[in-house]
Amino acid sequence: MNTEQCPHIVVLGAGFGGLTFCQTFRHAEARITVIDRQNHHLFQPLLYQVATAGLSAPEIAQPIRSILSDQPNVRVLMDEVREIRLGERAVVLRDRPEPVGYDYLIIALGGVTTYFGHPEWEALAPGLKSLEDAVRIRRRVLLAFERAEMEPDPAVQRRLMTIVVVGGGPTGVELAGAFSELSRNVLRTDFRRIDPTRARVVLIEASPVVLSNFPKDLGENATQTLREMGVEVHTSAKVKALSEGRVELDTGEVIEAETVLWAAGVGANPLTRTLGVAVDRAGRIQAAPDCSLPGHPEAFAIGDLVSLVQEDGRPVPGVSPAAMQMARHVARLIEQDLASPGGVPAAERPPFRYWDKGSMATIGRSAAVAYLRDFHLTGMTAWFAWLLVHLLFLIGFRNKLAVFLQWTYSYFTYKRGARIISGVRPGPP
Amino acid sequence: MNTEQCPHIVVLGAGFGGLTFCQTFRHAEARITVIDRQNHHLFQPLLYQVATAGLSAPEIAQPIRSILSDQPNVRVLMDEVREIRLGERAVVLRDRPEPVGYDYLIIALGGVTTYFGHPEWEALAPGLKSLEDAVRIRRRVLLAFERAEMEPDPAVQRRLMTIVVVGGGPTGVELAGAFSELSRNVLRTDFRRIDPTRARVVLIEASPVVLSNFPKDLGENATQTLREMGVEVHTSAKVKALSEGRVELDTGEVIEAETVLWAAGVGANPLTRTLGVAVDRAGRIQAAPDCSLPGHPEAFAIGDLVSLVQEDGRPVPGVSPAAMQMARHVARLIEQDLASPGGVPAAERPPFRYWDKGSMATIGRSAAVAYLRDFHLTGMTAWFAWLLVHLLFLIGFRNKLAVFLQWTYSYFTYKRGARIISGVRPGPP
Repeated sequence: MNTEQCPHIVVLGAGFGGLTFCQTFRHAEARITVIDRQNHHLFQPLLYQVATAGLSAPEIAQPIRSILSDQPNVRVLMDEVREIRLGERAVVLRDRPEPVGYDYLIIALGGVTTYFGHPEWEALAPGLKSLEDAVRIRRRVLLAFERAEMEPDPAVQRRLMTIVVVGGGPTGVELAGAFSELSRNVLRTDFRRIDPTRARVVLIEASPVVLSNFPKDLGENATQTLREMGVEVHTSAKVKALSEGRVELDTGEVIEAETVLWAAGVGANPLTRTLGVAVDRAGRIQAAPDCSLPGHPEAFAIGDLVSLVQEDGRPVPGVSPAAMQMARHVARLIEQDLASPGGVPAAERPPFRYWDKGSMATIGRSAAVAYLRDFHLTGMTAWFAWLLVHLLFLIGFRNKLAVFLQWTYSYFTYKRGARIISGVRPGPP
Repeated sequence: MNTEQCPHIVVLGAGFGGLTFCQTFRHAEARITVIDRQNHHLFQPLLYQVATAGLSAPEIAQPIRSILSDQPNVRVLMDEVREIRLGERAVVLRDRPEPVGYDYLIIALGGVTTYFGHPEWEALAPGLKSLEDAVRIRRRVLLAFERAEMEPDPAVQRRLMTIVVVGGGPTGVELAGAFSELSRNVLRTDFRRIDPTRARVVLIEASPVVLSNFPKDLGENATQTLREMGVEVHTSAKVKALSEGRVELDTGEVIEAETVLWAAGVGANPLTRTLGVAVDRAGRIQAAPDCSLPGHPEAFAIGDLVSLVQEDGRPVPGVSPAAMQMARHVARLIEQDLASPGGVPAAERPPFRYWDKGSMATIGRSAAVAYLRDFHLTGMTAWFAWLLVHLLFLIGFRNKLAVFLQWTYSYFTYKRGARIISGVRPGPP
């Protein structure tokens, strides 16, 4: 078989969207090339647990090659996309001299943390998108406690023991809850001079309620639970200024905090702005209803970097189930296109329809919120549902088992397994 | 109780020696301060498994605070030792303005990788002493395979798929065996263009046999087993020159290799040379027979940074059981000193005696060598003994369980759980 004559599909990004495409697309002769700058697929929903020392990095990541090793028609390249040439149907990579040509293109590069016009805040308030981000946040927080233990000045000690989380969406709520538990339960007996239970965890949200995309009663439940756990929740508040160790809110309040984490803004991968297609303010591609790029029926955008309004006028949210549903939709479209002589005219393609399965966020030990249509859960029930769903969707049997055991262990012992500060000052002495 | 009047013991380093001292020293009124530049104790014997993607970093590390949290008289400082002032009985730290005074000092800072007068080789051939080293080595090897998959030139491809391990002691043997298995079993089906089973793993040892500190039959068994696993073992060979991608041996042979790892030389922490006491060529302190520093009966050196010859003329080897035995010996000496009014005169202190429990090294799946006095084990039996001993000595129930499960999983599936390349090119896109 001359593979050069087989249709070649290039998938950019091996997140939930890209990987689901590879796993569901079926065509005997098509070749797929997946390109990702990491060697691993990352299970983003559990990333906050790496940042808060509950899990270690390899437990929520799986080598892409290993996930796809039983699909001989799939080739994996670890490389970074430099340029997408829609006109030439080719992708330029960083490490490869020749552009990679394609017959179909799936752009699934995901999102990046954005700072609402303040890119200089990135160094002061890291976001949480990659394993490196998570390990860096873990290191920063654990080191701040170590320095507090050595610090004679009570004011400096208080600053070192203050963590501010900006953004009250699911990630912000999960980070604030987990840091509160880390200081109140896990670190409680480990220091001699400081009292970790007196650490301050502050959550800042611009809307009047946290989890503003959730039904109102669940947002209120989450706010209440966080406060009971000792988290200071500031709603209807925005960050006005950020400097080293200092957060100023538009309410006038100033918080001295060694650690500031950014869970507020998500924008599309900046490559979208170079494509010559319409994008929204967050840089998301304004795709056709079938997820294809206007004027390029052979190129599709799926996941967090696409802005899609459904027939009923509701936008598709930037969540992983939407990315996976789009991937399956596009896989069916391309299969049909390849099956019909001459292809399916773009106008006849069915539009993408998002099926909202609901959403969930964990707050802490035995506390979560979840909804499925009009069915709302809180507390212990929601927490068990959260654990179960995340274990089911985590890729790889070994990871499922490892995470299940870590959780069971932490539940009964109040300890956390990944309280390791690594990556600081290598070398002797 | 005025703690300032209690005897204050300062322990530098929380490796096997320092930690064992804290755990075995018993005195109602003494205070102990442990100083380490990491927040975790590292289980060094399994470090090669982190480097070869078998285990993740937190599984072989445990927070020092957490290990010692039930000992209220022990204080942990995460800091780096800058200077030891034996005359003033004080230690100067990097982050703390005031020197820390002591009544007794335990120097347990361990060893560093040395390059026999070629410090410029460090960047070309990293050693394996810390979690950072291990993760860096893992990243380097996995990235070399990724690049080989993209490389059109067969000669470059071969170089990318060659790993040279310098030094045939236990660490070198374990690294070579594990890398051979990684390429032959684990990565076998994951690539489309390269064949990982054709990767070249070369082990270079200056002595005529590997594991030269082991009984001769075990060294021969290890050499034979490595060769059966496809490792090229070069004995009686030394590295003459190193440059990027190229190793030249004194036998004249030249090996083109992307990855060169250094498991050949271990020297004492360089701080030993600043103490004004006699050190040997590797910088190890020439301590008195009781492990104290000559002229300083209140200061002791234990573990890899001490050179001690026993009464029978045999030197104490630089292995973890020796460090732990020294720690217990010194703990007893200080307890006796504190118990007798005026202290025990240095000349009356009993000398340290090393009890050689034997030694073991793993080579690969179902293959290891071990000895206890005249009792020698090889193959599957030695391998099971190795697994058991390492699980028993690993600190922390959670770590024992996690490592046991990883090993069981890898044994039955031929997969490895930590094949994650992290720490490269953070940030978008």
